[in-house]
Amino acid sequence: MNPASEGHVARRVRTVETLLILVGIISVSGGTVEGLAPSYRALAATVTGIVSLGFLVEYLARLWIAPEIPHLLSKTAIRSRIRWALSPEGIIDLLAVMPALAAASGGARLGAESASVFVLLWVLKLATHAPGVGLIARVFHNERSALGAAAALFIIVLFSSATIAHWLEGAEQPEHFGSIPAALWWAAVTLTTTGYGDVVPHTALGRMLGGIVMLCGISVLALLAGILATGFAEEVRRREFVRIWDLVARVPFFSEVGAIAIADIVGRLRSRSFPAGATVIRKGAAGESMYFLVSGEVAVHLGARIKSLRDGDFFGEMALLDRKPRSADVTTVTPCTILELNVADFYQLAGQQPTLIAAIETEAKRRRATEAE
Amino acid sequence: MNPASEGHVARRVRTVETLLILVGIISVSGGTVEGLAPSYRALAATVTGIVSLGFLVEYLARLWIAPEIPHLLSKTAIRSRIRWALSPEGIIDLLAVMPALAAASGGARLGAESASVFVLLWVLKLATHAPGVGLIARVFHNERSALGAAAALFIIVLFSSATIAHWLEGAEQPEHFGSIPAALWWAAVTLTTTGYGDVVPHTALGRMLGGIVMLCGISVLALLAGILATGFAEEVRRREFVRIWDLVARVPFFSEVGAIAIADIVGRLRSRSFPAGATVIRKGAAGESMYFLVSGEVAVHLGARIKSLRDGDFFGEMALLDRKPRSADVTTVTPCTILELNVADFYQLAGQQPTLIAAIETEAKRRRATEAE
Amino acid sequence: MNPASEGHVARRVRTVETLLILVGIISVSGGTVEGLAPSYRALAATVTGIVSLGFLVEYLARLWIAPEIPHLLSKTAIRSRIRWALSPEGIIDLLAVMPALAAASGGARLGAESASVFVLLWVLKLATHAPGVGLIARVFHNERSALGAAAALFIIVLFSSATIAHWLEGAEQPEHFGSIPAALWWAAVTLTTTGYGDVVPHTALGRMLGGIVMLCGISVLALLAGILATGFAEEVRRREFVRIWDLVARVPFFSEVGAIAIADIVGRLRSRSFPAGATVIRKGAAGESMYFLVSGEVAVHLGARIKSLRDGDFFGEMALLDRKPRSADVTTVTPCTILELNVADFYQLAGQQPTLIAAIETEAKRRRATEAE
Amino acid sequence: MNPASEGHVARRVRTVETLLILVGIISVSGGTVEGLAPSYRALAATVTGIVSLGFLVEYLARLWIAPEIPHLLSKTAIRSRIRWALSPEGIIDLLAVMPALAAASGGARLGAESASVFVLLWVLKLATHAPGVGLIARVFHNERSALGAAAALFIIVLFSSATIAHWLEGAEQPEHFGSIPAALWWAAVTLTTTGYGDVVPHTALGRMLGGIVMLCGISVLALLAGILATGFAEEVRRREFVRIWDLVARVPFFSEVGAIAIADIVGRLRSRSFPAGATVIRKGAAGESMYFLVSGEVAVHLGARIKSLRDGDFFGEMALLDRKPRSADVTTVTPCTILELNVADFYQLAGQQPTLIAAIETEAKRRRATEAE
Repeated sequence: MNPASEGHVARRVRTVETLLILVGIISVSGGTVEGLAPSYRALAATVTGIVSLGFLVEYLARLWIAPEIPHLLSKTAIRSRIRWALSPEGIIDLLAVMPALAAASGGARLGAESASVFVLLWVLKLATHAPGVGLIARVFHNERSALGAAAALFIIVLFSSATIAHWLEGAEQPEHFGSIPAALWWAAVTLTTTGYGDVVPHTALGRMLGGIVMLCGISVLALLAGILATGFAEEVRRREFVRIWDLVARVPFFSEVGAIAIADIVGRLRSRSFPAGATVIRKGAAGESMYFLVSGEVAVHLGARIKSLRDGDFFGEMALLDRKPRSADVTTVTPCTILELNVADFYQLAGQQPTLIAAIETEAKRRRATEAE
Repeated sequence: MNPASEGHVARRVRTVETLLILVGIISVSGGTVEGLAPSYRALAATVTGIVSLGFLVEYLARLWIAPEIPHLLSKTAIRSRIRWALSPEGIIDLLAVMPALAAASGGARLGAESASVFVLLWVLKLATHAPGVGLIARVFHNERSALGAAAALFIIVLFSSATIAHWLEGAEQPEHFGSIPAALWWAAVTLTTTGYGDVVPHTALGRMLGGIVMLCGISVLALLAGILATGFAEEVRRREFVRIWDLVARVPFFSEVGAIAIADIVGRLRSRSFPAGATVIRKGAAGESMYFLVSGEVAVHLGARIKSLRDGDFFGEMALLDRKPRSADVTTVTPCTILELNVADFYQLAGQQPTLIAAIETEAKRRRATEAE
Repeated sequence: MNPASEGHVARRVRTVETLLILVGIISVSGGTVEGLAPSYRALAATVTGIVSLGFLVEYLARLWIAPEIPHLLSKTAIRSRIRWALSPEGIIDLLAVMPALAAASGGARLGAESASVFVLLWVLKLATHAPGVGLIARVFHNERSALGAAAALFIIVLFSSATIAHWLEGAEQPEHFGSIPAALWWAAVTLTTTGYGDVVPHTALGRMLGGIVMLCGISVLALLAGILATGFAEEVRRREFVRIWDLVARVPFFSEVGAIAIADIVGRLRSRSFPAGATVIRKGAAGESMYFLVSGEVAVHLGARIKSLRDGDFFGEMALLDRKPRSADVTTVTPCTILELNVADFYQLAGQQPTLIAAIETEAKRRRATEAE
Repeated sequence: MNPASEGHVARRVRTVETLLILVGIISVSGGTVEGLAPSYRALAATVTGIVSLGFLVEYLARLWIAPEIPHLLSKTAIRSRIRWALSPEGIIDLLAVMPALAAASGGARLGAESASVFVLLWVLKLATHAPGVGLIARVFHNERSALGAAAALFIIVLFSSATIAHWLEGAEQPEHFGSIPAALWWAAVTLTTTGYGDVVPHTALGRMLGGIVMLCGISVLALLAGILATGFAEEVRRREFVRIWDLVARVPFFSEVGAIAIADIVGRLRSRSFPAGATVIRKGAAGESMYFLVSGEVAVHLGARIKSLRDGDFFGEMALLDRKPRSADVTTVTPCTILELNVADFYQLAGQQPTLIAAIETEAKRRRATEAE
């Protein structure tokens, strides 16, 4: 499913699952400490069992709703389920269930070795389910050629410095620099600026080399940061645009605006989700944003009166137009998805899309007139 | 209060308070060193007492002016004060006063344990009062999903590497790699490239794993830097826009300019604060900026004559128009808030907003004519 | 040869070569470990020999096709070959062949010292052949003045801290801080945050200095990252533009678009290469991009019917226009070079270049009509 | 003097001076190593003397030409010289000369302590003279509020973690965690990820805290990198604009272009300096840029004929217009300052400033016609 169109439920399921995996990893890891008190060990085993059961329930649920996955290639649900079960995600989810099955089938206590295997499986499960991991994977994929070049640079410096260190320090410390592979350990520890200190150059020239390798290390790190910063900013921009575009399409107010204006607006909006009963605007606070209601219902508390707003309405524009504190509390009645327009972007938009802001001002005037009645 | 509209006084109070907290933290910490000379200990106790008294005064002052805080929900001052006293900030400020109260109520010397508590309380006070901490908190909040993904990646690499290290090194060094939690310590120290060196892999495969973990570590660090760089640039842009917009609204010269031009100008201005008597422009220096006076009064020293400029005037445009050194000293008469327009942005604006620059040129010509008289 | 215009073959040759060098470096390094089992040593020698032979073949091949190198200054092939053989690249490639020649000429086993030399030569070969190293070298070259300033800052902090450390710790630890050069080792290890721990300040003032040096260290690292991030983003933008511009010129669809629109489009396209038989679009997936076929042939699987598209055609636009899942599989028939237009950029382009998107919509309507027949 | 308008001579003087300072620092530092061979010691003393003499000559020269410094406040040269001699730069330069004066006045050998002083003085001199240090200082100044916030965050984490570590590890390791200041050393070493390893937490909770502190450390580092990357990109943009603007004003070709176009062009040009006799364009190479000659003279080698171009001419446009390799060598006859327009920016400009590119095309046609004659 496209993460952009995930609903409230899907996001909550994902969060619960992530937490469950984390709890599971910690309890399995903890359960294998030597000399742990029996009560703690029992607790760890119980928690591990519960988490495994949770995964079993989740696996069966996912198997059941498999037909709704996006790569829907057939119309028969059973074939979809088999396909999902054989997909990498399905197999990982099945393997993650193994501790529960093993425990149920008699084996009461997990050995340390099998525990390690489950930690790895659950970490793998975390990698496929944790929100945002896909985004980061995409950035690494987009920047693979630049990252490859940085890796080549890393290897070049690593082997050069290991070889030179072998020449300079080999006679002095044969146990640490006697061969190139031995010297590589020192080079890797130094180039990443980890610096365990188990191997340290003793000669003056070796120390000079060490200083240069450290400098190269922070340069490689800086280069990596530069590559990833560039790629990350670009990928986030692309994702957000699509996400917001989908939401804008559901707000009637924007439907009358032409494509040019839309492309301009979309880049400035942020989507936010609120549960029912949350306070979106607090009376007396500074007005920093206006809001467009994509889905859900909010209540505007005008003293004793309560005004209800629904999908497609906007609110919070008055404090921006007048630069005054908020004049009313606004709370959500149902879970809401809301688009937020920052005051900075509101004014910049006022310059570039005057008709749009004019439409907002007209509506604001109408509201003031209504309230004055 | 919106930080953008903070005056000179508010900013100075904030700076003094930050310094006071730092002095307090250092004196409390220092006062608990074992075997400290009695005179130093007495000094630390005295400084701690003075700082605590300062906090007491500040607490009472804040309580008194509480009605002016932005979340003004009622018209009765007493209720406002109670509300502020019960707010997180009020409670932290009250707790920070405790050493003064404790000292006053008889307990002369602070024990090491209670001192630690005060350090934590004062650090908390620093976090709520230090300028700019809110900005950073906002960046972390805006980027929480990306940061969460990076954290997930960190956890995935951390647990995977600890598990594999447990397999590879567990037999060799059972005291350090005997269980997954034990191996986690090594993994965390290596993945963050801290590298204490208290635990180091001994086998060839363990060292290879170590090298890979270090590389992952610098990649995670680079990824974090990329995420925060992107988020920081965006948040700063938004804040600055609002800040400058507020100031521009107070300069009459800009009031005749349309909203489109304003949005373009605002992005290019920087606000600066000068105390009374400061030199804004030095005769003979290269002309790098022109200035718009938001509030305060400046004196232009034209040889023996002194020309006074007040709120809303601009100056320093001649050196930009002629590309010549400054022709006069300009000093502040009262504390001033000034908007600075860099020469690079001046010329770019000349391209995009020709009418605005034309207005500046007209004024400059008029001034030259006046001076020539 | 301009990397932008490299074909599929050239890129594959480059990848194979990079892998060959890596294998070679590892086998030469590994072959010199003291006390290695004879069978492993023999394996390493064999692999080294094969890699060297590979380099010999490559050297002769490059010498043969030398006339096609870009700096073609004469029309006689032999002179071109001599010129290439004497160029830095030619000499490095020749030197890289030496192990093969040495082995062939009788010397069966490589000594540890000569092995080190070959590692360095092959690392040098990697530096000249690895893809992307040129890009990074260019970034360092473009930013040389800023990097020089950062280096000056590094040197200033390094020598200042070494000198002050010599004053503060010289009496306490004469063996580590007795002279400025000795203190420099500690300063370098600390400033780069490597922190071996072999030299650590013992006095309170020395530790304060240490803390400040560490803070300076992470600031210098952050500064380097900032410089390289800025430079990298700029250089990547420039390279991509030229690369894509070359490809766009080969797509007839764009030839009718004016230069203004082209400059706008080029910045938004990404080029991708697919081997024969790859799936570009999968039926049922979300439509995230549309594609322009620069070279090669793709097959659109419309149920039983297969529609063939060739150079200059575009596809995948329907899912973007309708915001629906993909309606057909698209696979490559021959190796293809394809320009990808992301959905975010598609809609932004729709705002800025309405005629271009209109042309795409017209074509899409025509296709739908055809399919409906 | 504005660094933007520095000539070739000024830049060369600056480079020589920087190198001289570096050599001086190294020789003074090296000369104080205990147990150095007398011959090395004599060499170091000689080099130090020569460098000091060089500084003396430089000091006198700067004193002589002092009237040309920018802050020219009077017309009498002697008063200017006194003013320069009393300026911070003048005083630092005078102090840097002291070793030469001391040596000349009889004291033959420098003691280790006085040597340290000279190292610090020369480092200070480096800080005022090294190119680019001013740029970095400006970035730190511009971003001072954000950097202050990051520093506050650093202090908050530092003191919190030291206090908590004191609680958790104080009983276990009283010598390292017995008081908050003692624990601060561990916290600083860990938070900056230096990790000497001289102090390491032993309890499980202390290690968990350690892991969190390390994570905070890489986050603070990432935050710093983000702040500096943002500030650096902005400052470089501003500086380059002013620098290029000054140069563009000297090219007659641009004088007919309006201010709007100029602002657009300036952002895309890069300035480069060539010595006499350098090759700017090599025949047969790919055409990646065109050039505008700001000052100096270049020779275009059209076979046997040589065409001379002078200030204000442009060249290299043909390879860009035709996308063909260079058709002629171009070498400098005198030292030249040249503005470079990258092919990517050339085409983007073609979209936004069609008249400008049209003017270039007209000139190119005229040249082709001339050459064909």
